[in-house]
Amino acid sequence: MSNIHIGLFGFGVVGQGVFEVIRKSKNAHAEIARICVRDPKKPRKIAVDPALFTDRAEEILDNPHIDLVVEVINDAEEAYRIVRQALLKGIPVVSGNKAMLAKHLPELIEIQKKNRVALLYDASSCGSIPVIRNLEEYYDNDLLLEVKGILNGSSNYILSRVFDHRESYADALRQAQELGFAESDPSFDIEGYDSLFKLVIITVHALGAYVAPERIFTYGIASIHESDIRYAREKRVKIKLVAQVVKVSDEHFTMFVMPEFVEPSRYIYSVDDEYNGVVIRGECYDRQFMFGKGAGSLPTASSILSDVMARLHDYRYEYKKREYLQKPTYTTDLSLKIYVRYSQTNILHVLHFEEILEQYISTESNYVIGMVRLSELLAKRDSLRARDLFIANIPIFFLDRDN
Amino acid sequence: MSNIHIGLFGFGVVGQGVFEVIRKSKNAHAEIARICVRDPKKPRKIAVDPALFTDRAEEILDNPHIDLVVEVINDAEEAYRIVRQALLKGIPVVSGNKAMLAKHLPELIEIQKKNRVALLYDASSCGSIPVIRNLEEYYDNDLLLEVKGILNGSSNYILSRVFDHRESYADALRQAQELGFAESDPSFDIEGYDSLFKLVIITVHALGAYVAPERIFTYGIASIHESDIRYAREKRVKIKLVAQVVKVSDEHFTMFVMPEFVEPSRYIYSVDDEYNGVVIRGECYDRQFMFGKGAGSLPTASSILSDVMARLHDYRYEYKKREYLQKPTYTTDLSLKIYVRYSQTNILHVLHFEEILEQYISTESNYVIGMVRLSELLAKRDSLRARDLFIANIPIFFLDRDN
Repeated sequence: MSNIHIGLFGFGVVGQGVFEVIRKSKNAHAEIARICVRDPKKPRKIAVDPALFTDRAEEILDNPHIDLVVEVINDAEEAYRIVRQALLKGIPVVSGNKAMLAKHLPELIEIQKKNRVALLYDASSCGSIPVIRNLEEYYDNDLLLEVKGILNGSSNYILSRVFDHRESYADALRQAQELGFAESDPSFDIEGYDSLFKLVIITVHALGAYVAPERIFTYGIASIHESDIRYAREKRVKIKLVAQVVKVSDEHFTMFVMPEFVEPSRYIYSVDDEYNGVVIRGECYDRQFMFGKGAGSLPTASSILSDVMARLHDYRYEYKKREYLQKPTYTTDLSLKIYVRYSQTNILHVLHFEEILEQYISTESNYVIGMVRLSELLAKRDSLRARDLFIANIPIFFLDRDN
Repeated sequence: MSNIHIGLFGFGVVGQGVFEVIRKSKNAHAEIARICVRDPKKPRKIAVDPALFTDRAEEILDNPHIDLVVEVINDAEEAYRIVRQALLKGIPVVSGNKAMLAKHLPELIEIQKKNRVALLYDASSCGSIPVIRNLEEYYDNDLLLEVKGILNGSSNYILSRVFDHRESYADALRQAQELGFAESDPSFDIEGYDSLFKLVIITVHALGAYVAPERIFTYGIASIHESDIRYAREKRVKIKLVAQVVKVSDEHFTMFVMPEFVEPSRYIYSVDDEYNGVVIRGECYDRQFMFGKGAGSLPTASSILSDVMARLHDYRYEYKKREYLQKPTYTTDLSLKIYVRYSQTNILHVLHFEEILEQYISTESNYVIGMVRLSELLAKRDSLRARDLFIANIPIFFLDRDN
């Protein structure tokens, strides 16, 4: 078997991890032939032949000896241009860029089909946990009812520090950044966008449906207060940032990213620190739980390696579920039970509740628990991202005969 | 896409589950064309066209309209004859028979290669958890260090009842049988053979190495006593029946099935009742944990469905790791730290300890904790299966830089 020659775009935390992991794996039959970076002269922490570096993308994209492009740069728009160009030239690509994929997947799927070229991206969702591959291959049937999980390591790390270690939110955020879990722009993690992009990608492989990110209600943890944490502790639940796609009937599914009150009996309750955990629920197999390191240089790089090795065997995603005849369609026309803590803003003036179940008013803070349409949350999302509110989902169960 | 026509062997708990799951899955493109059973006239609980049944294997094996054989019968030797015959005739097979596979895999792999025909068996190991497929595809590299888990649902159910619900072992065993978790011959589960067979299959896909079941130390939970449970409770650990394959150096790996004292910090600690849980550990991704229903009619059948649908896309195991140049080899030449409780038998006369770390003697029962060669345990296994002994592994860590 001859070696696969990789053109690597990006040599940051993940890129260096890819380099290291491929060097370690004696049976990988892969070598990094060229590395495209912004500044080839920049001093590097690990020993790499300086001749490998270039700042000209065409030295990879127009190089007939390159068999595979691995793209692990930060900038989503630049990543899109590189990946698109590579695929159009017939070069297979492994990418870890969730923001780019969540936005451009429909076009990139079309290019893959038209040019019979593969784009693999298991590393984009949950790092070393093989979620995409399992949804695409193993849960390749219409028994699947739900994929729900903690998809973002840094927001989960912060919530763990705050909950289990009673640290302040600001301290926890700083630590997450120091440890390299949080992206350089922390809003990506803590506002829920990172989870959202992963959820969009997961849904393509879970149900064969692409829903654009802007159509999905997304609410993060940036505005969590001591009173929310106290409330959750009293109720003996944890607050986790949860992304979910769930069939609500044979015809429809819904998706959203929101903080959630998680009871101790739930698998994701014990997913702490920077870990990710995903629950896959189906009609016959009940719940499967996958748990592991979702971020970080080497876990992400090991997932990239899995995709690289899959290419040695000509593996490609078939996107089979997109061809299903009876595919469910996306809806936000359903009710959620939510908790909203507020202080200045009178939430009842901002958001229409179908039903109010509990209301608490005090000098310090107030909360209301009630039923709200998901479409209403989506319509009001910009005004809800005010400083003095915190919203959390209180799970109710759809199509779940064993709860 | 035209339907795949299945010839089903066996219509017990799993066979009926397969029938039901395929009927439910609208996009499966699969139909059961013929069912071979011992007694076609036997009344069945679920409504099936009586014309589907036959008691003559050749009505499936010599039928040109059958695209795939699904084999879910109990008898391992009969299963072997059917599977071998089908493969020799060029018909792909999906099987769930771990005893048969653990014994005959080397020959069946050869036949697959020679006749370019596929045999899939993800359902044989951990029911609905996709362990084999992930080891074969996703952890397809030499970073893998260890696969360790609770692979048998019924022994785990019994231990859970005894530990968490303080029931007697005999009551717990009876319940497991009533609930259908335990095989008709319970020794298969509680003596560890079911876990052993699964471990043999897993190791073929984890490290590319086949080790015959009789070369692997296997010790079950049949002789557990109240004093063992009390000891474990005092130490705040649980006793679980654990199967493991682990690299002990770059050149060697080892495997064994034994009860183990599991600390609360370990992922498998929380795998209770009839559930299975598998930890996959690798050099760069640390630990991945997969958890789900390992047995039962529908979970197993949903796993069979995954294999059936994989056949629609011509999927086959490539057994890539068997071709690795630097494959580790099996060894039992290493020390384990074990606990042995004994009453009549003086264990020190039966088993050679390299080192004794603790010894406890009382009127009721005695125990010793010490270091023993795994080769010594293997050599003495028949004499160790005496009534008044109980052996448990106290994990020490090999090649584990983060413990």
